[in-house]
Amino acid sequence: MRTTTGWQADGATAELRRTTLERRDLRPDDLAVRVDYCGVCHTDLHAVRAHDGGRALVPGHEFTGVVTGTGSAVTRFSVGDAVAVGNIVDSCGECPMCRAGQENFCHAFPTLTYGGIDRHDGTATLGGWSREYVVREGFAYALPAGLDPAAAAPLLCAGVTVWEPLHSLGVGPGTRVAVAGLGGLGHLAVKFAVALGAETSVISRSADKADDARRLGAQGLVVSTDPDQLADARDRFDVVIDTISAPHDLAPYLRLGAMDGTLSLVGHLGPVTVEAMDLLVGRKKLSSAGSGGRPATAAMLDFCAEHAITADIELLPSSQVDEALTRLGRNDVRYRFVLDLSDLD
Amino acid sequence: MRTTTGWQADGATAELRRTTLERRDLRPDDLAVRVDYCGVCHTDLHAVRAHDGGRALVPGHEFTGVVTGTGSAVTRFSVGDAVAVGNIVDSCGECPMCRAGQENFCHAFPTLTYGGIDRHDGTATLGGWSREYVVREGFAYALPAGLDPAAAAPLLCAGVTVWEPLHSLGVGPGTRVAVAGLGGLGHLAVKFAVALGAETSVISRSADKADDARRLGAQGLVVSTDPDQLADARDRFDVVIDTISAPHDLAPYLRLGAMDGTLSLVGHLGPVTVEAMDLLVGRKKLSSAGSGGRPATAAMLDFCAEHAITADIELLPSSQVDEALTRLGRNDVRYRFVLDLSDLD
Repeated sequence: MRTTTGWQADGATAELRRTTLERRDLRPDDLAVRVDYCGVCHTDLHAVRAHDGGRALVPGHEFTGVVTGTGSAVTRFSVGDAVAVGNIVDSCGECPMCRAGQENFCHAFPTLTYGGIDRHDGTATLGGWSREYVVREGFAYALPAGLDPAAAAPLLCAGVTVWEPLHSLGVGPGTRVAVAGLGGLGHLAVKFAVALGAETSVISRSADKADDARRLGAQGLVVSTDPDQLADARDRFDVVIDTISAPHDLAPYLRLGAMDGTLSLVGHLGPVTVEAMDLLVGRKKLSSAGSGGRPATAAMLDFCAEHAITADIELLPSSQVDEALTRLGRNDVRYRFVLDLSDLD
Repeated sequence: MRTTTGWQADGATAELRRTTLERRDLRPDDLAVRVDYCGVCHTDLHAVRAHDGGRALVPGHEFTGVVTGTGSAVTRFSVGDAVAVGNIVDSCGECPMCRAGQENFCHAFPTLTYGGIDRHDGTATLGGWSREYVVREGFAYALPAGLDPAAAAPLLCAGVTVWEPLHSLGVGPGTRVAVAGLGGLGHLAVKFAVALGAETSVISRSADKADDARRLGAQGLVVSTDPDQLADARDRFDVVIDTISAPHDLAPYLRLGAMDGTLSLVGHLGPVTVEAMDLLVGRKKLSSAGSGGRPATAAMLDFCAEHAITADIELLPSSQVDEALTRLGRNDVRYRFVLDLSDLD
């Protein structure tokens, strides 16, 4: 066994605790990765708040770092390579979804970067808020040279989550895209939609974000609390990416969809209720997305390198993880916290 | 005013009553239509059962007949022409939806064939369970010569309702379609999907419908109460047309969808709840459809003429309308009741 240091949650109310944790010895197709930067996602916040103090919880599932060791059968990476890892680290490899490159939909369920069970030794996976991670090479991605490793970390979860619907729905020049909610997911959705050539608008509860929306490349802002603005924007968008992380009424967002438009939910992933008539009128579609398969993740990173896209981040030493979680809980971040794990050395 | 005879609902529990009712004098663009055959739709049943005995209710919104009079400006029809009318008889004509040929989604709401308000004189519309109907020529369709007028009547509501999603979703050779529920809507969905060249299956609560499904051209039947059959059919269909008229759990039907598949609700149109994760996994879409615009309705009728498609009906004299409603309430019809209105003469 190898040992490293990380941040462990001990229950919903306790602060995270710096602790020593074990990593497996390298299997033939494993990489050892020194984790340099790891994002703080809403999923992490939910996991910490829901934690009952039982099984060890080390969050973190969007990270970048450097390869420090390779198993005997590794072919794609060498020590010193910059790599990135997202929210899944393994899958069955045999089901139709895995064969189609949608490992995130693996019928046998993909192995999550933390809170999962390793398919080979049955141990619980511990996440990227730690100084070292051991991962199958097939689930690590080469980090393109031009991308800042800290600001690139959130691409691996937030980025691919919004990339997937934009890409699969064919967003490009001529497409009218609205992004509801301008947070970690939303600001990347705007950057991607703009770079894909779409006419892009932000939907936000207040006009405060107008300057940011413009700076990110959006042409417009629709204030969702203003009924007149909502009415004006009716039927306007081919794709609405809903990144709002709390439960909310979907009807106003469906109404913004144009004929044959799609509302894609990427923020709140619980049960959702809609009126069938709100889908029927205008022949609208409701869909959802979260993370992505390996081909999509690699394509997204290539696209980011080509268009110089990374997240807008606030970088904190990992010892300030509790502050990051508290502030994320009140959406007080523009737009993604990233932890610098070098303070764990 | 013109007078005719029809069947009026006087409240949820009363039998329908034969009564004299008024039709407007022909406006320049109006047709007078002798109604020969009118289908009995679940919507009619709901309308009768929900009726409080207030404003006069004459149901019926899928009918065929013959033109008996034309307004001074009518150009497309002559006395003696066979015509068909569906569930909408007017719309604003100016909004983006009307301009796009989706009058069924008119922003100012289309005028319904019954239970609506005429846009010009403010009178309540009374439906096709009557011997005469007066309709703007723009909302009447030429009934193709080869189609039996009685069996063609249900095409105008049930038919176009299932045609719309099949057509807009691009169903054709290579598409795998499942039709859930084999009733008035479902049996037409099967006929259409088969004629469009799709590999078509029926999903039914019991194996009883296997012979019918095969006779309609379906290649397979999935029994929805058999967990093994449902599991086998997981991820199998590009399009699932859900014609089930009662509220039900959508999760099993979403799971039948293939990657990027669509579940289209055409039967029960109330509020629906789904787990976002059931959309996310496999990137599935939820949509809904009901009736259609004028171009789609005309195209559907042309397609039916080309492929000799009509509904499988049970034809009853209109005096047996109560029996039809009672039996429809327990789904005791294969597959659509049509009323013969000639007994109103």
